[in-house]
Amino acid sequence: MRPMPAPDLARLFSPRAVAVAGASTKVDSPGHDYVHSLRVFGFEGPVYPINPRAEEVDGYRAYPSLATVPGDVDLVISCLPASAVLDLVAQCAAKRVPFLHLFTARFSETGDPDAAALERQVLAACVAGGVRLLGPNGLGLYHPAGGIAFRPDLPQECGAVAFLSQSGNNAVEVALRGNARGLRFGKVANYGNGLDLTPAVLLRYLAEDPETAVIGAYVEGVPDGRGLFEALKAAAGHKPVIVHKAGRTVAGARSAASHTAALAGAAELWPVAIRQAGAIEARSQEQLLDLMVGASLLAKPRGRRMAVVGGGGGRSVQSADACEENGFDVVPLPAAVREQVRAKAPQLADWIGNPVDQSILAGSGVSSNGVLELMLASGEYDAAIANVGEDWFLGRPEGDERLKHACSRLAAVCESAPIPVAVVLGATETTDPGYRAVIDAVRDAFIARNIAVYPSVERAAWALGRLAG
Amino acid sequence: MRPMPAPDLARLFSPRAVAVAGASTKVDSPGHDYVHSLRVFGFEGPVYPINPRAEEVDGYRAYPSLATVPGDVDLVISCLPASAVLDLVAQCAAKRVPFLHLFTARFSETGDPDAAALERQVLAACVAGGVRLLGPNGLGLYHPAGGIAFRPDLPQECGAVAFLSQSGNNAVEVALRGNARGLRFGKVANYGNGLDLTPAVLLRYLAEDPETAVIGAYVEGVPDGRGLFEALKAAAGHKPVIVHKAGRTVAGARSAASHTAALAGAAELWPVAIRQAGAIEARSQEQLLDLMVGASLLAKPRGRRMAVVGGGGGRSVQSADACEENGFDVVPLPAAVREQVRAKAPQLADWIGNPVDQSILAGSGVSSNGVLELMLASGEYDAAIANVGEDWFLGRPEGDERLKHACSRLAAVCESAPIPVAVVLGATETTDPGYRAVIDAVRDAFIARNIAVYPSVERAAWALGRLAG
Repeated sequence: MRPMPAPDLARLFSPRAVAVAGASTKVDSPGHDYVHSLRVFGFEGPVYPINPRAEEVDGYRAYPSLATVPGDVDLVISCLPASAVLDLVAQCAAKRVPFLHLFTARFSETGDPDAAALERQVLAACVAGGVRLLGPNGLGLYHPAGGIAFRPDLPQECGAVAFLSQSGNNAVEVALRGNARGLRFGKVANYGNGLDLTPAVLLRYLAEDPETAVIGAYVEGVPDGRGLFEALKAAAGHKPVIVHKAGRTVAGARSAASHTAALAGAAELWPVAIRQAGAIEARSQEQLLDLMVGASLLAKPRGRRMAVVGGGGGRSVQSADACEENGFDVVPLPAAVREQVRAKAPQLADWIGNPVDQSILAGSGVSSNGVLELMLASGEYDAAIANVGEDWFLGRPEGDERLKHACSRLAAVCESAPIPVAVVLGATETTDPGYRAVIDAVRDAFIARNIAVYPSVERAAWALGRLAG
Repeated sequence: MRPMPAPDLARLFSPRAVAVAGASTKVDSPGHDYVHSLRVFGFEGPVYPINPRAEEVDGYRAYPSLATVPGDVDLVISCLPASAVLDLVAQCAAKRVPFLHLFTARFSETGDPDAAALERQVLAACVAGGVRLLGPNGLGLYHPAGGIAFRPDLPQECGAVAFLSQSGNNAVEVALRGNARGLRFGKVANYGNGLDLTPAVLLRYLAEDPETAVIGAYVEGVPDGRGLFEALKAAAGHKPVIVHKAGRTVAGARSAASHTAALAGAAELWPVAIRQAGAIEARSQEQLLDLMVGASLLAKPRGRRMAVVGGGGGRSVQSADACEENGFDVVPLPAAVREQVRAKAPQLADWIGNPVDQSILAGSGVSSNGVLELMLASGEYDAAIANVGEDWFLGRPEGDERLKHACSRLAAVCESAPIPVAVVLGATETTDPGYRAVIDAVRDAFIARNIAVYPSVERAAWALGRLAG
């Protein structure tokens, strides 16, 4: 199959009118959720639930068939059973609907030959009818700025991070968890079996989409490896592209086949192909999120000279290991910075180094935030990592207030920094409700200021190292 | 220096009476915290604050000097300045105090030759006076069953997990974060500069300590590498030993020297030495905790056959990759299990595999917990990973209750499983307060039942793979 030219998918992600075939009045069902999500996300155009047995669905007037819908429709979302899809495609073609999304599943992924044959017929009918097809077996679209989402509880913040996912549950997890990390999503698509709108086609569109600044992709199997490679190359030439290629192992590929009917492809080729395309490889959802956070919230480091502050002695040693093992040069404190410290804390000036051990500074009148500012101003560093060291604060009287104050100061330093500064604040691994509340609160405050936060210094150093190229 | 034979350290970790030199009435000070911690942890013997200018400290009668303390003292904790330590050692020797812990710092770690000379004098005085020395420059002891802790807010649960740490802030983090992961601590020591009670000496004691079932160790530098190796070998012959060796890099070693005056040692030798000793290496605090959780809460897998359930299709593919990449064989579903599934859900029996994709099962009357039970009963697996897939539950009506119900059922399955079952429940990466509360609640419920919980399937598979040996 030759790679198709990138189509104009603007009306896929930002349809002017949407019909939901198989819309349902039953609250706990996809046929209700797709309609309800349009309401929750403030979709501005007409919404047409298709249901021959209902007057309305979630407050929208229902229609017995697509043919009876009064206006033009840019997108039809199908929650119908697989057996009803060929008829729906015919109706879409008749009404000149440009985009059909099949949430409908149970096609080739089941391993059943009849289901696979039906899938081929569906694709042929779409091609013949001029209907572009997203899916089947995918949750479809999440584009908060366009008022559309595959689940009503997804984050409503809008941004410039695009994400393509073969898997639906992975798309939901990345959307929810990424949002909590500060990712603000633009165009997200879960393409499932990816029959027509393959990841390559979607990537080519996103590559030139002005709303999209960063692209993440979760791919299990690829029928057209060359096409995906070329699309990756095209996209990575315009903006950062992160690729999580799963189904790398024998067991993973077997599982992928039963999931979205995808051939996972030669595992050993993909890391090389991704790198050659100029994209960055993630090997887990965690790595994908860490890289997307970095690409979205941090400038690309211009070199390998790393400044590290905060945390006690153990954290300093661990930070140095993590930075050097990820290719950074933990450059000793410049002499000028040392003299600036000497002016305030003469007894510490010859002792402190890079990483800056916060426990040495305790009580000296010089804070690690203060030393970080001096290091940033020195021009001797290309990137920085600031350990919050929250466990230390929490053990002190008024620890909550001290922690909040230090984080607020650190956030201001990050905002005005001339180089990327990643903040390390642990996951909320405590059973103390008070500690939980304050750690969550300071993390949320960083995120609200668009600061990149990593749960460990190793993850921060790894992500910065990959992004530095 | 020749390795010393393992001393009897029972009275170090479980002293019958404790004196705190440099005890303070000032609440936000170590001299107050050490006294207060003894109260908070219910220390049962006499507590003697030493402070010539106070009547009492935290409700305990204060004494002007160690000499004036009326009873025997097993442990003296020093918060005095370094300049006062030689005199304190003399007083300890005169009173036949067997153990002295120097929280006192600013010795050789400062890089100052005079401070290093004083440190050598302190050690010589201790050896001459028959006083065993913990520290200097360390937080000292946390042994909740003995009523002693280096911070009053540490967890009070008692258990059989021992931990040695060169770094104080790392010891605090491991104690707090490990507790939230279900680690219940026995004897924990932050030995700082480790002059006399080196990690080797401490390890030899813990190796034969009946209270200790699992040993973790965080080591930066080792003056006596051969001694540590022999102690690791002795300990690993008795119980699981996890070693996080930091200061592996040039920058890390430089940082370690300014932290606890330790030479970090030839980096490339330690992974080999740790493995040869029969211990398991961690390369970060996160890996250390993941391994300690596994060693503490999971039986060692007897082989490499892995069962995986739960989560949707993407999670299944990612799980298969993670398991195979960590040396497990993701054995296909046994025929007998497939037939048992067929009896309940004939249309799914030929579709589902291992990993068991929860989204395929939805609505079938067969749950992934149910399939897990069948797989466990088959005798065809050596270990299992159960993905909770919480993000899927949370999007449904009554998602909280459904999630709690499924987790409660899963916990019961884990408790009666004949092989180790690791649960995967994500970090609480959401900004929704309701989601936060329910995810924290179900994690706490697993932990309360002593079930090993990992934030990602990759971390679960990695830890199980290392523990399987």
